[in-house]
Amino acid sequence: MKLSVLTKALEIPYSGEDFEVIAINTLQDASADEISFLDNKKYIDTLKETKAGAVFIKEEFVPLLPAGVEPIVSKNPYLSMAYASKYFAFDLIRKTSASKISKSAIIQENVHIGNGVNIEDNVTILANAFIGEEVTIGEGSIIYPNVTIYNDAKIGKNCTIHANTVIGSDGFGYAHTAEGAHVKIYHNGKVVLEDNVEIGANSCVDRAVFAQTLIKEGTKIDNLVQIGHNVEIGSRCILVSQSGLSGSTKLGRNVVMGGQSAAAGHLEIGDFTTIAARGGVTKSIKGGEVYSGFPLLKHKDWLKLQAKISKFFNK
Amino acid sequence: MKLSVLTKALEIPYSGEDFEVIAINTLQDASADEISFLDNKKYIDTLKETKAGAVFIKEEFVPLLPAGVEPIVSKNPYLSMAYASKYFAFDLIRKTSASKISKSAIIQENVHIGNGVNIEDNVTILANAFIGEEVTIGEGSIIYPNVTIYNDAKIGKNCTIHANTVIGSDGFGYAHTAEGAHVKIYHNGKVVLEDNVEIGANSCVDRAVFAQTLIKEGTKIDNLVQIGHNVEIGSRCILVSQSGLSGSTKLGRNVVMGGQSAAAGHLEIGDFTTIAARGGVTKSIKGGEVYSGFPLLKHKDWLKLQAKISKFFNK
Amino acid sequence: MKLSVLTKALEIPYSGEDFEVIAINTLQDASADEISFLDNKKYIDTLKETKAGAVFIKEEFVPLLPAGVEPIVSKNPYLSMAYASKYFAFDLIRKTSASKISKSAIIQENVHIGNGVNIEDNVTILANAFIGEEVTIGEGSIIYPNVTIYNDAKIGKNCTIHANTVIGSDGFGYAHTAEGAHVKIYHNGKVVLEDNVEIGANSCVDRAVFAQTLIKEGTKIDNLVQIGHNVEIGSRCILVSQSGLSGSTKLGRNVVMGGQSAAAGHLEIGDFTTIAARGGVTKSIKGGEVYSGFPLLKHKDWLKLQAKISKFFNK
Repeated sequence: MKLSVLTKALEIPYSGEDFEVIAINTLQDASADEISFLDNKKYIDTLKETKAGAVFIKEEFVPLLPAGVEPIVSKNPYLSMAYASKYFAFDLIRKTSASKISKSAIIQENVHIGNGVNIEDNVTILANAFIGEEVTIGEGSIIYPNVTIYNDAKIGKNCTIHANTVIGSDGFGYAHTAEGAHVKIYHNGKVVLEDNVEIGANSCVDRAVFAQTLIKEGTKIDNLVQIGHNVEIGSRCILVSQSGLSGSTKLGRNVVMGGQSAAAGHLEIGDFTTIAARGGVTKSIKGGEVYSGFPLLKHKDWLKLQAKISKFFNK
Repeated sequence: MKLSVLTKALEIPYSGEDFEVIAINTLQDASADEISFLDNKKYIDTLKETKAGAVFIKEEFVPLLPAGVEPIVSKNPYLSMAYASKYFAFDLIRKTSASKISKSAIIQENVHIGNGVNIEDNVTILANAFIGEEVTIGEGSIIYPNVTIYNDAKIGKNCTIHANTVIGSDGFGYAHTAEGAHVKIYHNGKVVLEDNVEIGANSCVDRAVFAQTLIKEGTKIDNLVQIGHNVEIGSRCILVSQSGLSGSTKLGRNVVMGGQSAAAGHLEIGDFTTIAARGGVTKSIKGGEVYSGFPLLKHKDWLKLQAKISKFFNK
Repeated sequence: MKLSVLTKALEIPYSGEDFEVIAINTLQDASADEISFLDNKKYIDTLKETKAGAVFIKEEFVPLLPAGVEPIVSKNPYLSMAYASKYFAFDLIRKTSASKISKSAIIQENVHIGNGVNIEDNVTILANAFIGEEVTIGEGSIIYPNVTIYNDAKIGKNCTIHANTVIGSDGFGYAHTAEGAHVKIYHNGKVVLEDNVEIGANSCVDRAVFAQTLIKEGTKIDNLVQIGHNVEIGSRCILVSQSGLSGSTKLGRNVVMGGQSAAAGHLEIGDFTTIAARGGVTKSIKGGEVYSGFPLLKHKDWLKLQAKISKFFNK
């Protein structure tokens, strides 16, 4: 889509250089045929190094754009990006290449296999599962009944996905108008599961807005767990039932999230951290220790605090 | 069903006027060919104005019935209503009119379409979804794979329902016998989604016992969210993952429920309220402010309290 | 599988008596043609009475084995058992006897019925449900769309399982290597639902590792609830939405678990206990009372404590 056509559709005046826009991307990852946006002052350093062809930007920050990057001036760049994202949303149903299914794969009846799918050797897919467009399922993986795998997901080798779990649903991302309406940000990113990942029943892993939601080798996830968009989970983590990770949070390796625990978005939780059941993480933590409670404390401090509270008020 | 036949089946003596009962309803909404029940003293004012044909009622309240409303005397009116509800439960599988499906709708394979369904223009329904009896799906809506929409639900225009979400499941309502058994209250109410509602994956919206569970225009709901029976959610609300609303609670417009937050039943949460992640609402609140914690406090008070607790016990 | 072959595959030296091993089981339940494991010192008394043919065991505890029970010496018996469990995992797809389906059962289209299934009179199974191998569904039960029932589950009479719920998924059980990898413990146990059990939408009941996960007569479970492996729930319990029970916990009769409440594993919660919404149970409790909070207190004490905290810090 020509940038002139896009800006006209968005009702944004634009008189800069015109070019064919192929996608929206982050400031960091955008290339010259992509557009991006500056939403938050803390990304100004990234702005200065962007390779994007054009950027939705507030007037005041235009002077900071590198040479050759066109400004698309907007009072609300994030909202403009959200409106624009609709024009770049991937097709839900595609006419791409035929699917490639190994002869050794066992696929029960009423499994939907999309176009351009690649199912490797010794995969088992039980009845009534849904495998979306251009999904890859690695050797030896098992997909249980009524699982839904959205378009573009990459499932590694020897993964197990239990019944009714959803991989690749849209991230929960909206921009907001002055009137309080929520404008959907279309998510073209994907979900990538490395090898030996097991996910329980009725869990959800959202696709990324750009790039990918990533679950690394050997991580095990229980039932009814929520993994937000653009989350990155290190290798060999354990996420117990009903825990949740908000968007863009990163876990190191061998992190344990206890039952009903959660982490807010855009945090980093270091290697070998354990969050006890019900723990609520709202700041990044370095790793190697056990934490509890909400507000979160080191587990032993939380135990002491609870004992002190109990003692003090019962005296 | 004749009231005399019903009361005989319930083993309740009845010698009042007989008539054909068509349904059970609330005191407020019941008409002369419906029956109702008085379970809670606080509804006595409503009792005095009911138009119901007959009412399950304790002996002591019989004198308060308006003229022309027959008493069905019961020691446990709620339990009697629960037993009676079975006789009025709508059929799960029906032989109603043929379904009406727009030619512009895209419906993938193995989608179950019930009887009397109405699917409007440009609807997309992906494989293995279930659309129950007499469901309506408005123009431009997208139903993802393995979604289950129970009978009678009304989905507005441009709604999106993500994979494996359930719309219209029975509310969790039982009356209890003296021996501690739970007697199911059959739910004949429906779910209504207005336009531009988006619901994430693996969420649940229960049908109403009477009338409807209502989600108004432009509200966005994340994954793994629970919406109880008879809940009413105003326009443009945001419900983040793993949050839950108990039965009959009402949200105003632009209310935000953070991740893993919840509200007890029969509450009102006013316009522009934000409940932070993990907040637990147990009393009605007026709106326009941010709340946190459990017990719930204004967010800034909760922050202060946590800081004071931490400081006091660490001194 | 011969024990000599198994131990060779596991790379464990073994020179004891050889025999055909038919299964792994607990110390308590294992018979002479089964093997077991001692993982925790607290089971030493059980060890002394085991009837197992052989036991994975640390060298130091070998002298405690009863006569005739062979030691399989391992530095990490639990890990050895996990590796061994793979060799005894039941087949996912089986060629057992034909299924027996009552003529009075109503089964909609695209329902997967496994081998050796028994569906009794007047059962209703709605479209797109999955009924695994050797499942039994008792008279009058209703299975809603997109439900997944894994192999070997036993569903009692007049049970109702709402849409997209999963019965019999693998328990979340792993042994851990010194390098932090998680080794799956294959679960051959089953799920048993007694009569008149109702389970809401998008809930999960995990199968047992050995023996069974049991939900007794008349218990009602709401939406999005997690029931871990080997849990036992007494008759007429109520589990409200988004609550969770960890593995091997036992509930007595008429226990109520409020919304978003939870219990840790291996606990006992006595008859007629009520855990209020959000309550978190970490120790066994006798029953007959109402509890709240996390850490858990008697409900009236929790209310008092919260009032005291509020008063003290606001003075």
